[in-house]
Amino acid sequence: MTILDANRLFPADVAARRVAAKLYEMVKDLPIISPHGHTDPRWFAENGAFPNPAALLIQPDHYVFRMLYSQGVSLESLGIPQLDGKEHADPREVWRIFAKHYYLFRGTPTRLWLDYTFENQFGLKKRLGPDNADEYYEVVAKALETPEFRPRVLFEKFNIEVLATTDTPLDTLEFHQAIRASGWKGRVVPTFRPDSVIDAEYAGFVENIEKLGEIAGEDVGTYKGYLNALRNRRAFFKTMGATATDHGHLTALTADLDAGAAEALYQRIVSGHSSPEEQQLFQAQMLTEMAGMSVEDGLTMQLHPGSVRNHNKLVYEKFGRDKGADMPSPTEYVRAMRPLLSKYGNDSRLTFIVFTLDETAFSRELAPLAGHYPALKLGPPWWFHDSAEGMMRFRETATETAGFYNTVGFNDDTRALLSIPARHDVARRIDCAFLGRLVSEHRLDEDEAVELAMDLTVNLVKKAYKL
Amino acid sequence: MTILDANRLFPADVAARRVAAKLYEMVKDLPIISPHGHTDPRWFAENGAFPNPAALLIQPDHYVFRMLYSQGVSLESLGIPQLDGKEHADPREVWRIFAKHYYLFRGTPTRLWLDYTFENQFGLKKRLGPDNADEYYEVVAKALETPEFRPRVLFEKFNIEVLATTDTPLDTLEFHQAIRASGWKGRVVPTFRPDSVIDAEYAGFVENIEKLGEIAGEDVGTYKGYLNALRNRRAFFKTMGATATDHGHLTALTADLDAGAAEALYQRIVSGHSSPEEQQLFQAQMLTEMAGMSVEDGLTMQLHPGSVRNHNKLVYEKFGRDKGADMPSPTEYVRAMRPLLSKYGNDSRLTFIVFTLDETAFSRELAPLAGHYPALKLGPPWWFHDSAEGMMRFRETATETAGFYNTVGFNDDTRALLSIPARHDVARRIDCAFLGRLVSEHRLDEDEAVELAMDLTVNLVKKAYKL
Amino acid sequence: MTILDANRLFPADVAARRVAAKLYEMVKDLPIISPHGHTDPRWFAENGAFPNPAALLIQPDHYVFRMLYSQGVSLESLGIPQLDGKEHADPREVWRIFAKHYYLFRGTPTRLWLDYTFENQFGLKKRLGPDNADEYYEVVAKALETPEFRPRVLFEKFNIEVLATTDTPLDTLEFHQAIRASGWKGRVVPTFRPDSVIDAEYAGFVENIEKLGEIAGEDVGTYKGYLNALRNRRAFFKTMGATATDHGHLTALTADLDAGAAEALYQRIVSGHSSPEEQQLFQAQMLTEMAGMSVEDGLTMQLHPGSVRNHNKLVYEKFGRDKGADMPSPTEYVRAMRPLLSKYGNDSRLTFIVFTLDETAFSRELAPLAGHYPALKLGPPWWFHDSAEGMMRFRETATETAGFYNTVGFNDDTRALLSIPARHDVARRIDCAFLGRLVSEHRLDEDEAVELAMDLTVNLVKKAYKL
Repeated sequence: MTILDANRLFPADVAARRVAAKLYEMVKDLPIISPHGHTDPRWFAENGAFPNPAALLIQPDHYVFRMLYSQGVSLESLGIPQLDGKEHADPREVWRIFAKHYYLFRGTPTRLWLDYTFENQFGLKKRLGPDNADEYYEVVAKALETPEFRPRVLFEKFNIEVLATTDTPLDTLEFHQAIRASGWKGRVVPTFRPDSVIDAEYAGFVENIEKLGEIAGEDVGTYKGYLNALRNRRAFFKTMGATATDHGHLTALTADLDAGAAEALYQRIVSGHSSPEEQQLFQAQMLTEMAGMSVEDGLTMQLHPGSVRNHNKLVYEKFGRDKGADMPSPTEYVRAMRPLLSKYGNDSRLTFIVFTLDETAFSRELAPLAGHYPALKLGPPWWFHDSAEGMMRFRETATETAGFYNTVGFNDDTRALLSIPARHDVARRIDCAFLGRLVSEHRLDEDEAVELAMDLTVNLVKKAYKL
Repeated sequence: MTILDANRLFPADVAARRVAAKLYEMVKDLPIISPHGHTDPRWFAENGAFPNPAALLIQPDHYVFRMLYSQGVSLESLGIPQLDGKEHADPREVWRIFAKHYYLFRGTPTRLWLDYTFENQFGLKKRLGPDNADEYYEVVAKALETPEFRPRVLFEKFNIEVLATTDTPLDTLEFHQAIRASGWKGRVVPTFRPDSVIDAEYAGFVENIEKLGEIAGEDVGTYKGYLNALRNRRAFFKTMGATATDHGHLTALTADLDAGAAEALYQRIVSGHSSPEEQQLFQAQMLTEMAGMSVEDGLTMQLHPGSVRNHNKLVYEKFGRDKGADMPSPTEYVRAMRPLLSKYGNDSRLTFIVFTLDETAFSRELAPLAGHYPALKLGPPWWFHDSAEGMMRFRETATETAGFYNTVGFNDDTRALLSIPARHDVARRIDCAFLGRLVSEHRLDEDEAVELAMDLTVNLVKKAYKL
Repeated sequence: MTILDANRLFPADVAARRVAAKLYEMVKDLPIISPHGHTDPRWFAENGAFPNPAALLIQPDHYVFRMLYSQGVSLESLGIPQLDGKEHADPREVWRIFAKHYYLFRGTPTRLWLDYTFENQFGLKKRLGPDNADEYYEVVAKALETPEFRPRVLFEKFNIEVLATTDTPLDTLEFHQAIRASGWKGRVVPTFRPDSVIDAEYAGFVENIEKLGEIAGEDVGTYKGYLNALRNRRAFFKTMGATATDHGHLTALTADLDAGAAEALYQRIVSGHSSPEEQQLFQAQMLTEMAGMSVEDGLTMQLHPGSVRNHNKLVYEKFGRDKGADMPSPTEYVRAMRPLLSKYGNDSRLTFIVFTLDETAFSRELAPLAGHYPALKLGPPWWFHDSAEGMMRFRETATETAGFYNTVGFNDDTRALLSIPARHDVARRIDCAFLGRLVSEHRLDEDEAVELAMDLTVNLVKKAYKL
């Protein structure tokens, strides 16, 4: 008896399922390309053991603890670290709480990822529940002590060809340096994410800019010097293997100010006394500047807009950022991105990948834009939409206008190392399910579906991220 | 020959249908829990006969007459009561018009509900049309004269365990009192819906507030007195069996003003000279106050936002409110509900059920919010979306992020007593269809689906509404 | 071997497919009613040969060249005419580029339309690709030289019963006159589209108004004279067979100004110094005026709102309008159309057909409005949504609230003569697929589905457009 069925996520219909299964057979063992995510480079630099099952699978995973929290389980009882340093939950107790509430994940992607992980990484083939919580805990804890569960071995076992982390311009990339120095052959590359020196609302923003100047050896007293500092750090990231940048903004607004206005705005921003409107305009201006630098240096540019961060004041004050309390909001693209696209959208040297948390934008705005501008590509379903239904809706709403070839394959976007193969497996299955339906409805020939399955799994992502 | 097929609304696919049918078999005869609706408590207090088929099935049902009106049938000809008191359509003629246009309802939920009612309540097994209009009329009219069609008998026949009505704070609940006094065992409970004393645009608003003060024995000259009056009426509703409140607002805006600002705003509002912005802010403030009172007294709180009332001026002036001319509008939740959620969203004593007429909010805003805040739950698809496709979209767009357990079962929300079993039947079938697909795609085990089918039908609604 | 499968676009499920195929068999050969489109009346007046395959199938089709452009193919290399008159691409080379990139259209409606055209019009039964590009070119080029490919013969071969073009009020309709004078029996009718004399942003707007005055013999120095000029041209269009008007606006805003305000606004607008807000208000006012004229003269009114025109500055400056760079934007209807609907929405003499590029409006706003107002009808999925998935979403999101009978059949809306039968074929197949699913889920009886398939294909469109 196993948790996982070989045909899971394929259409129930026999004809469509047959095609989906055939396509999946061809792509399931292809290497994993992970061009965007949030794993910790330190893991691969130090290659230490993960401490315990709760610290591995529950405490770092906001998908998991946000659901438990929504049903009245306190974050304290789950051992989520508090800002004042308190945290003393027994990992075995945390695990029992989790197991007791595992039914809450029915129908969610978290459930699919965890079941996959339990069966494939730990050989656990009976569904988790309160009755076998301790058994699960023992098996996982024991496994974590073995050499087979060290980060580098997992990386290789998962058949990861390349894995990108996400890093600030202030980062010295010491762990990336250590990985290289170690002689280990796994390809772990950084991604240039400058939010902390672009978003004036970021904690320590003014100090961050000063630090940026120091680390880059540029005078950040002027806008030109600030831009040069960023240019300098991008070059450094490139030498360390980076092929992409990433930007997390509240909106997709872009701007194209003239030199004088941009300089004046920059001075207001670094003065520490700017208005929210000025801060937003500065972010908008910087997206266009970053696109210009990407044209110069070839780094692929990513934009993740539309998340209202730290929505829950109480949770934020006690536990800090990234605690499952960021919320999507309606996001406009057509007018917002016009300044950037007017300036660089026709330039094929730029690859500008846009994501969304507002699925309505796919058919209305993003697919029409990506189906026209040479520089623009559609990122895969992000975050809450990185799910079976979300991925299917993406294909259904974007493909007819943008085609498959203005998309860029899958991003796992995860902090959870063990979930990487599970997430790529779901993505491959859903793509095959969609293609299977198109073939069974005679909208696509089977030989084309085969080629597409390969392209969606490997080729498009390599091309978009220059990997 | 019958109108209804045993497998209606189940997936066409054989494998998914098999599971759906099996699940449905287990839930179809469970009692009906109806925690939110608009039936008239007077029916159960007086237990009189319904006058005629048109008065029962057409004139009170805006789903029915709005569709006929959209195709050029006048409201006068349907006997919809006019504000000036005119109304003299012959019910048999009204019925003939209805039958002649019955084809307009093809593909609509109204058709599903009516077919169910005709076959199951009246034994009519041939589809309604112009040819058998009179036959239908006779059968229904004759049935209405029998004791079997008195409200209390229907209530019992429908296996209704509890039915909530919707009532203003100014209501003495005399009919609820009469039901209790009668010794009849049917559980009919009121719901506290204070729009008429919170929404300054409501006809007679200022007088309503005065009346509220009188009925509650509080001095509504101050904000504090006004709040106490509401608190007092809530307590009275509780003694009469109420377990919930309900709020119909134009938006989901909430506010959290300090005491001085709230008092000043209240004085502006009761002066009768407030601006639309002040009126909106007052409504926003009152949602947060009501959440606070729910924390105190345990009444579950419901919010139904986003309906633009009385869109059609001509119809409103001639026929008044609730004539099928209310229209949905885009509704934002993430920013709008932040003040209330910051104050009470983490408090598990509060159950705050939010509905929407803007389906795009499910995957973008409502499921992410409900999948995090302990107090927040998702109401079922409402009004235009209380339909086969609408319910399926709800499950497809909300489940992956909110899970099943942050939803609260089904609301029939109806004024039409006879449609209650039909509506619950559609909801049960669609839930089973969705679960059947998940099982056939191996995303859920069958034993879990069985448990879920029970939970969605009975357990979640009882828990959310404390019934 | 053929490109096209007889069951294409039908559901994969056997039961639903059986019904779909049966319904399709009944409607596939019904005449084509094309009440809205952009073919050139000159073709039918002069009945000349189309010059070459690229000029026929690629250069006029923005669906085709926008996709190629999005993948880095220059518009110059495709021979798209430039504003400065340059254009010297060899059509055979253009065709080769197209064939080489044909894989980009996988999963798009363009692919469905082209495959249909290749097989059914040219007998090409092997999929287009780089290998057979020249063979395709020869076959198509040779065919275009034959009499069978002259516009009038194609019109008859396609079984077109009536075809509407789109024309400005300044047009003398000389080609429509020539068609009539020729004695040819094909019914080609104009549509009154006054954007160029209503939208102040239109190039040459002020001169257009003057020209309108001259051609209509009215004094456009006053608002009244301007309205009379429009009334006059509408009457002329009617004498030439027009049954409809069409309006392309940035939003769905309508207004109902009093006479003085309207006159003053008109004077601002024709002064050439109006603000964007005034221009928008004028457009809004004119929609209501046009609805009033439609009540008078019986022309069916169409509104196509929500397209941000000429989004790509560089492409616009070099190649001009209609080059695949118009983008949809979020569009609100409930509040925007209230002034017009309050004035004329209850008048059954008006048929007001509204389209959208914002699919979220179907279930939220447009279906609720169309399911109530007698004058309002829903246009079919438009432009980017004129696709298999788009049409299916339309039926799924609009039918339950608006019913089938507040929709108006299909519009091909095309500039590409050869694509007309292909587009109608896709529409008929998808409607049958949807009906097939409803029948197989027992939500509709099969005899009703047969009637509906006929109505959706022919009867509803004839009624809505008075054809």
